Amino acid sequence: MDQKVISSAVIKRLPRYHRYLGDLLENGIERISSNELSERMNVTASQIRQDLNNFGGFGQQGYGYNVEYLYREIAKILGIDRQNSMIIIGGGHFGQTLANYGNFETRGFVTKAIFDVSEERIGQTVRGIMTHSMDELESWLAENPVEIAVLTIPKQAAQDVADRLVACGVKAIWNFAHLDLKVPRDVVVENVHLSESLMQLSYRIAAKEEKK
Amino acid sequence: MDQKVISSAVIKRLPRYHRYLGDLLENGIERISSNELSERMNVTASQIRQDLNNFGGFGQQGYGYNVEYLYREIAKILGIDRQNSMIIIGGGHFGQTLANYGNFETRGFVTKAIFDVSEERIGQTVRGIMTHSMDELESWLAENPVEIAVLTIPKQAAQDVADRLVACGVKAIWNFAHLDLKVPRDVVVENVHLSESLMQLSYRIAAKEEKK
Repeated sequence: MDQKVISSAVIKRLPRYHRYLGDLLENGIERISSNELSERMNVTASQIRQDLNNFGGFGQQGYGYNVEYLYREIAKILGIDRQNSMIIIGGGHFGQTLANYGNFETRGFVTKAIFDVSEERIGQTVRGIMTHSMDELESWLAENPVEIAVLTIPKQAAQDVADRLVACGVKAIWNFAHLDLKVPRDVVVENVHLSESLMQLSYRIAAKEEKK
Repeated sequence: MDQKVISSAVIKRLPRYHRYLGDLLENGIERISSNELSERMNVTASQIRQDLNNFGGFGQQGYGYNVEYLYREIAKILGIDRQNSMIIIGGGHFGQTLANYGNFETRGFVTKAIFDVSEERIGQTVRGIMTHSMDELESWLAENPVEIAVLTIPKQAAQDVADRLVACGVKAIWNFAHLDLKVPRDVVVENVHLSESLMQLSYRIAAKEEKK
């Protein structure tokens, strides 16, 4: 498929389409009109048609969308039709949570190893995934290249570790450390700053009270 | 301060300003020009001036911004100049991670209790925070009203629990369950869908490879 430039707003909506279509599939629904999908997703039908037209459009007039076909096509676009292997840097509570989260695997994200500096954690497994010493990071990655490194370490250590990952050829970082990483242009970083999300929530609480 | 309608793009940037200003404060920096702030944050200086003008503008020509004043004013706007009390629904790995995260407290988000259905977890504490039975949710909230409920439970259970929270008068939900909650208009929901964030990352990996 010809990949044109797609706005980041559309890309943000794609995983949601994928989720809804997955739910439909689970419920045995084979086709759906943009109107029905619109009602379920609380997005206008024209928005849905417009979004999906970015990818050539999968609908047929009078038939609607073939759920399974659309589900698979969106998966391809999202790059989740194949396996993405990951390592988790930081085997604390949060790293363990992510390692335990089997749902990632059903979407093709397979965690291969955990790395930590704590002697207590090194050698431990989480759901069968081994925790290695950070000292072994370079040698391990040389043998086992991965697509994605997940950072669940304190912000003080994060830039150094990111530099080491980049030097090892890692091209994608899912960053939970609370800072903006500096990486070369060809490395993609997706940030999840939980406390910023919480602040947006508290802003909305405060703004609502102001209105009263 | 007169609160006008502020675009959601600006609001998304505010926590980041707050974080950078906090770092400056920690490093003993008392004032900063929009140009310097711009360089650090990788945002244009005119963007910074424009953003901060939404709140009346705190800069003075030739002086720059007073870091501490700006930091405090942004905290007020974000509603983190006061205490927001929270409960966590779901005492599993992820709920425990959030309960353990002391950084939330330094920003005024104080977790008062955890609720769970598992007999094993009920009665356990995490960082001194008690885990209660879900059966006690209503009676506990009647005695201890909170601003925010955090949902870290499977999606199958999430809507029911959200309904119970809303019936108890909870007005803000930080939702980690992988579904879109249906709540009344006066209840604010902030979603963190981790697997959708991961899909955006994989989209960007896939899109980059397509370009090669």
